[in-house]
Amino acid sequence: MAEDNVVYVGNKPAMNYVLAVSTQFTRNAKEVVIKARGRAISRAVDVAEIVRNRFIPEASVKDISIGTEEVTTEDGKTVRLSSIEIVLEK
Amino acid sequence: MAEDNVVYVGNKPAMNYVLAVSTQFTRNAKEVVIKARGRAISRAVDVAEIVRNRFIPEASVKDISIGTEEVTTEDGKTVRLSSIEIVLEK
Repeated sequence: MAEDNVVYVGNKPAMNYVLAVSTQFTRNAKEVVIKARGRAISRAVDVAEIVRNRFIPEASVKDISIGTEEVTTEDGKTVRLSSIEIVLEK
Repeated sequence: MAEDNVVYVGNKPAMNYVLAVSTQFTRNAKEVVIKARGRAISRAVDVAEIVRNRFIPEASVKDISIGTEEVTTEDGKTVRLSSIEIVLEK
């Protein structure tokens, strides 16, 4: 799967990412991976649910995985952040 | 699986729920289900990761599912909230 089928969810409104994911599917992507870390994880779940329920009804959740990533902050500290990957398929 | 193997994650510090989940496992639960809605979803993932990485290393993620729930607010409005269920097994 090409790397451009990945949508990283951050702090923008969920609808931005919903449109990004839906656009991938309308361009015939078979799978789109939604990734997020930290507090954006809740928004990533919103994005997957809105895509499935309102925009691409034939999309379904293929896989969900969670993990922990070490991130170095601007002042050199290392913090651990939870992460999620949601794979939607059509 | 008995209903008391479910831990609902809300707005308290993650460590409260980490202790609740770990306690279930030390009482010989084979599975513990972590549930959350809305913004608490990120915290639920934190809880699962902290339990696995720090407290119950033999625990693993058996299943993760997401959904949408309709919730009626105090003023009678119906809102849709994303939800998550993380099943940990030992």
